[in-house]
Amino acid sequence: MSTQVPTENLESDPRVKAVFDDIRSTRKTDFINNMWLWLAFDPALLERTWTEVKEVIGKPSSIDPLTKEMIYIAVSVANNCSYCVHSHTAAARAKGMTEEQYGELLAIIGLAGKTNQLATALQVPVDDAFDASATVRRTAAEGS
Amino acid sequence: MSTQVPTENLESDPRVKAVFDDIRSTRKTDFINNMWLWLAFDPALLERTWTEVKEVIGKPSSIDPLTKEMIYIAVSVANNCSYCVHSHTAAARAKGMTEEQYGELLAIIGLAGKTNQLATALQVPVDDAFDASATVRRTAAEGS
Amino acid sequence: MSTQVPTENLESDPRVKAVFDDIRSTRKTDFINNMWLWLAFDPALLERTWTEVKEVIGKPSSIDPLTKEMIYIAVSVANNCSYCVHSHTAAARAKGMTEEQYGELLAIIGLAGKTNQLATALQVPVDDAFDASATVRRTAAEGS
Amino acid sequence: MSTQVPTENLESDPRVKAVFDDIRSTRKTDFINNMWLWLAFDPALLERTWTEVKEVIGKPSSIDPLTKEMIYIAVSVANNCSYCVHSHTAAARAKGMTEEQYGELLAIIGLAGKTNQLATALQVPVDDAFDASATVRRTAAEGS
Amino acid sequence: MSTQVPTENLESDPRVKAVFDDIRSTRKTDFINNMWLWLAFDPALLERTWTEVKEVIGKPSSIDPLTKEMIYIAVSVANNCSYCVHSHTAAARAKGMTEEQYGELLAIIGLAGKTNQLATALQVPVDDAFDASATVRRTAAEGS
Amino acid sequence: MSTQVPTENLESDPRVKAVFDDIRSTRKTDFINNMWLWLAFDPALLERTWTEVKEVIGKPSSIDPLTKEMIYIAVSVANNCSYCVHSHTAAARAKGMTEEQYGELLAIIGLAGKTNQLATALQVPVDDAFDASATVRRTAAEGS
Repeated sequence: MSTQVPTENLESDPRVKAVFDDIRSTRKTDFINNMWLWLAFDPALLERTWTEVKEVIGKPSSIDPLTKEMIYIAVSVANNCSYCVHSHTAAARAKGMTEEQYGELLAIIGLAGKTNQLATALQVPVDDAFDASATVRRTAAEGS
Repeated sequence: MSTQVPTENLESDPRVKAVFDDIRSTRKTDFINNMWLWLAFDPALLERTWTEVKEVIGKPSSIDPLTKEMIYIAVSVANNCSYCVHSHTAAARAKGMTEEQYGELLAIIGLAGKTNQLATALQVPVDDAFDASATVRRTAAEGS
Repeated sequence: MSTQVPTENLESDPRVKAVFDDIRSTRKTDFINNMWLWLAFDPALLERTWTEVKEVIGKPSSIDPLTKEMIYIAVSVANNCSYCVHSHTAAARAKGMTEEQYGELLAIIGLAGKTNQLATALQVPVDDAFDASATVRRTAAEGS
Repeated sequence: MSTQVPTENLESDPRVKAVFDDIRSTRKTDFINNMWLWLAFDPALLERTWTEVKEVIGKPSSIDPLTKEMIYIAVSVANNCSYCVHSHTAAARAKGMTEEQYGELLAIIGLAGKTNQLATALQVPVDDAFDASATVRRTAAEGS
Repeated sequence: MSTQVPTENLESDPRVKAVFDDIRSTRKTDFINNMWLWLAFDPALLERTWTEVKEVIGKPSSIDPLTKEMIYIAVSVANNCSYCVHSHTAAARAKGMTEEQYGELLAIIGLAGKTNQLATALQVPVDDAFDASATVRRTAAEGS
Repeated sequence: MSTQVPTENLESDPRVKAVFDDIRSTRKTDFINNMWLWLAFDPALLERTWTEVKEVIGKPSSIDPLTKEMIYIAVSVANNCSYCVHSHTAAARAKGMTEEQYGELLAIIGLAGKTNQLATALQVPVDDAFDASATVRRTAAEGS
């Protein structure tokens, strides 16, 4: 079930067609996944979202592509976005995630879910050692 | 502010002392961060939690230590656990996270926050291509 | 799938019948959506919930009816309630939400999802200018 | 820091005064906690909220008062509401929660945080045995 | 839909078989619910999770079994884990939860959802009376 | 406390200076709120975020400026982002939100928090009438 359905001739809109063409050439496949079909009713939203995905996830950078997808899965699980969990788990596998790595990823996500709730339940105060501004103040004090 | 305060002589309980000693020797430091002080009122909870952290985060495995901390940060942000965001950001830096990597990590977390909410708002249906059980069914059908 | 199923003759309970009658006359339709059928097993919970919906959403007030539904969608997306996203998107359309407004609503929700996670990740401190109690203190100081 | 500050003479509004008087007499104390002071700027919201708290939490019922507070803590932790975690932990202690029970409550909340995220990460399908409507269908089929 | 499918001969792995045997004998039933089938691809994760569930939920303790399940439902609803809501609602019913208790549980969860969001919206400051460390400071001051 | 501190001469980076200059001229004020100071360590992230805020929130459009801020508040409360709740409540007031409107906004957010959790707890199935794709199917069937 969905709150919106894509119209039949999405690519009759030239802005939509341009994004879809870019998705196909960037990913070297004809497959356009539902997320982009569903966003196409608002071409500006589609453009902005694809541009950001291409820049943040697609560009070579200091974090390798598989790690990026595992981070994306982690956020999607914690935010409880079913579509996103499915799509990024598939993407991580396509980028080489092994079953062993997947099991470890889940172990980290599960453990974080547990310790997050314990820290929240106890309202544990942040240690000074973890506060970046305290570090600055300490350094300043030591420097004087 | 906190819902609980650690008692003064936590380590007079031998189970607490054993965990704290293990934290100190595993991490090669005398510093025990607040999370463990706050959990110490229930020694069984303290033991189970530390054992799991040591096994999931501490052991050499198929995901490198820095990546583990970045995944932990991602979950903690999405779960909105202030203590956890602070402690794991500090841990990631201690394990070598650069400012460039930190900026990229935030870009991924922010983008995931955005696309997660868009997918949820539109209730985008999961593509068959992303469904692991569909893959099994397809393979079975092709095999027949 | 559901954790509960409505019994067959819900309206044989006079308290349930009274609420359903009020829903039908208030909304000028015979259609009772599932939310109310599912709550009917506990008549007190049904009454309290309907009374609050009628008062908060149904009454003429300083926020117009369409804006109310768009705010409701926003909360439902952020809380990730699938039923609620569906029912309030339908309600917003019934109250005149255009496709253009819907696209803009999603853009705001998506952007808020992104900046929310960035502010949480960085633990950005609240500016004094945004603190209502600071305003009071400043005014008091200036007045003296 | 707060987004709103209570005015000085809150009880000059007779609707506010009536609610505060009822809080004082119901709880047999002069202490009005901040939640009610902060809601008082909108008397209708204050009245509806206090009426619901009194009915759901205050009335004798099939769930005992301490259990109610522990359930309230659990929801507040999972929703990450700092004020609520503090106030209901204090309330649970006032109603007799022991340190042993508190430790166990945290263990359940932490475990649920973990298994919740694992079930979400794997998108585990709900067993038919847990579906209330399936039970109805099975019963109907067996009856025929 | 799921991100993972259990392999056909899960119990050919002796570690998986040992956990499944323990589930069957602990629960006195042959029924293994999906959660365990889905975790079995990573035997270490399966073992750790089952061990914790058995210790936290299964052992006799200061919180009775039905209350534990109701707390688990509350966390699962607030975390929005559909599988968990289904499985723990079924478990609570199996442990004797009446329709009356279920209605009251929902009333508490719904009310907490409301007051949680109000406290967050207003950023209500925590009363000193609810701060455990303040209590310690007050006691120390009075003692001197 | 914060996980990061802005460096002293942020505007010595020309990309940062360009964004800050644009913020000042767009908003006609010298005040740069913390969010932008904290994002400045990663100029690309700063640029992308400001560009999106300017386009989604700043441009004249089919949703009026005050309604946009109220929607932003609603998302920020549900996502529990303290910084965001503070900054957008201040922005809504600057755009003319009255106390009456603020009270009603809170009433909607609180009610949505409650009904969201009830719908999730009961796993209420979405009515066909709320499913956009069902509408399409119905229309197609009627057309034939």
